[in-house]
Amino acid sequence: MVVAKVWQRVKAFEGNPKQSDFKLVDEKLADTLKENEILIEAVYFTVDPYIRVLDLPTGLPAEQVARILDSKAKDFPKGSLVLAHVGWRSHAIINVTEPMNLGFKATIVPEIAGLSPSLWLGIIGMPGVTAYMAFLERCDPKPGEVVVVSAASGAVGSVVGQLARDKGCTVIGSAGSKDKCDWLKSLGFQHVFNYKETAPEEALKQYAPDGVDIYYDNVGGDHTEAVLNNLRVKARVLICGQISAYNQARDMVPNPYRKILRAEAKVQGFLIFKHLADFPRVRKEIISLVQQKKLQPRETITQGFKNMPQAFMDLFTGANFGKAIIKV
Amino acid sequence: MVVAKVWQRVKAFEGNPKQSDFKLVDEKLADTLKENEILIEAVYFTVDPYIRVLDLPTGLPAEQVARILDSKAKDFPKGSLVLAHVGWRSHAIINVTEPMNLGFKATIVPEIAGLSPSLWLGIIGMPGVTAYMAFLERCDPKPGEVVVVSAASGAVGSVVGQLARDKGCTVIGSAGSKDKCDWLKSLGFQHVFNYKETAPEEALKQYAPDGVDIYYDNVGGDHTEAVLNNLRVKARVLICGQISAYNQARDMVPNPYRKILRAEAKVQGFLIFKHLADFPRVRKEIISLVQQKKLQPRETITQGFKNMPQAFMDLFTGANFGKAIIKV
Repeated sequence: MVVAKVWQRVKAFEGNPKQSDFKLVDEKLADTLKENEILIEAVYFTVDPYIRVLDLPTGLPAEQVARILDSKAKDFPKGSLVLAHVGWRSHAIINVTEPMNLGFKATIVPEIAGLSPSLWLGIIGMPGVTAYMAFLERCDPKPGEVVVVSAASGAVGSVVGQLARDKGCTVIGSAGSKDKCDWLKSLGFQHVFNYKETAPEEALKQYAPDGVDIYYDNVGGDHTEAVLNNLRVKARVLICGQISAYNQARDMVPNPYRKILRAEAKVQGFLIFKHLADFPRVRKEIISLVQQKKLQPRETITQGFKNMPQAFMDLFTGANFGKAIIKV
Repeated sequence: MVVAKVWQRVKAFEGNPKQSDFKLVDEKLADTLKENEILIEAVYFTVDPYIRVLDLPTGLPAEQVARILDSKAKDFPKGSLVLAHVGWRSHAIINVTEPMNLGFKATIVPEIAGLSPSLWLGIIGMPGVTAYMAFLERCDPKPGEVVVVSAASGAVGSVVGQLARDKGCTVIGSAGSKDKCDWLKSLGFQHVFNYKETAPEEALKQYAPDGVDIYYDNVGGDHTEAVLNNLRVKARVLICGQISAYNQARDMVPNPYRKILRAEAKVQGFLIFKHLADFPRVRKEIISLVQQKKLQPRETITQGFKNMPQAFMDLFTGANFGKAIIKV
């Protein structure tokens, strides 16, 4: 009999998540598999900011790359790696024909030389697919346009910035430390600023004196307000994340509507959970870009399942570079 | 020698425009025309809410249908009617090769049986072209979708509502009196509400219990906030006017960004002044729709150039139905 270790959320988050919000429990799994079921053991986990705002009925959502320990499912052979969206748990039995949390289905992770399986949680996973679809397919970037990316050293932002650079845009990224800014420079961002030292409004005055064509918003708050005050005609704002609002929502914001009208701007939201059918197509494109070195992945890896709450909390204090991954 | 009567704005507007903001002066025109010039006499004027927010260097902007009294311009024969964007003035001399206020160029008004020349200021003019381009070409309306139109009895809103009805949408319109609501019902709006008696939030609960697919915003304020709280997935919000904000801007509004994100909504602005090249194409379409009785024009005509300030002020108190026109 396999006993799964499971992290549970014991109460609703208030403000930044705290260690006391979490509890580790044991859960006995069934002894035998039914038709279409597989028994899996987690190898890598992802933690993402969106967890903060979802209120799933059971446990905490998270995708994992897991090893198949036993299988009664065709096309899911024992020993293979599989993507499973079953929460913060070390082991699970899943039916591969049924959707998991957020509608995700079990997906085999192919073994490709030079690509860590953990990348299927990052640049070849939800954050990368988000960046590709939301930026390339919804923001219509053109050479020479001024693109601002917030949380630019994060899992989504760092991909957006690299895609923008390859489109010939002028890329301005914000991040929360000198190390992160240096890394963004090394990726080819033309301008970077540390938002802890320079207000977005100031940075835009300096780096985007003629305004912003595209703003890829991962944070909300000051960044959004500064861009709304500096929209170029036909500017596009893509609301992808609102990390500043997850823990401290601003109920009232400066009126954006006249600014949107005057610039004929477009402000749109993108939620990856509505686009799961696009994953196979977009994953292929991203794998190709990574193999051509046009996209550089970066991960911050936390060792140990027991440290998963800390890895999650770190997302909100800006401790991670690139994709936050937990290695069991 | 011709002496033009000219309404001038004597000070910046504060809150609702007042009679004392305006002054009527005489202006002597040149005795002779130069090459490409025409002398015109106003027949119809339009007043539009946007005047409130523009700050043009000379006088007050407004388009007029004028009679050509004398001409030294090819294709602009004496006796014809012409559209001219030369402000609140009874007479003018214009060079037809040069752009006027806001980039508009002089355009001959063709004589078409059954269509008053004043319609070139309304349904076949800026408001109609705005409604057509912003709604049909940017909101992607589909049969069965729920469309909300604010200021629905106005020059733009009444056209949007009729276009939405013809697309097979469920149309909800707001207006400021029972008479206006009755008229909208007669045009085929499924639901109407008097926003002076029913708050937009209440109206949406009743008429759009499953949310709003498209909001065509002519007013801003309460209407926009109510819709943002009731967005359907992939909702589209078109910011066309912000009449509630022209005179009493709300500096702070409820945070829309998370709502836009969660619905994957799109909020975009439309400014007709950036689309003057589209007028000939769109005018043809609208003339055809009017001739097929698919679009019903409605005008509120104020008699007398001397009453032009009052006609303008009436826009902000909701006194007019359809297009506000001044007949000299």
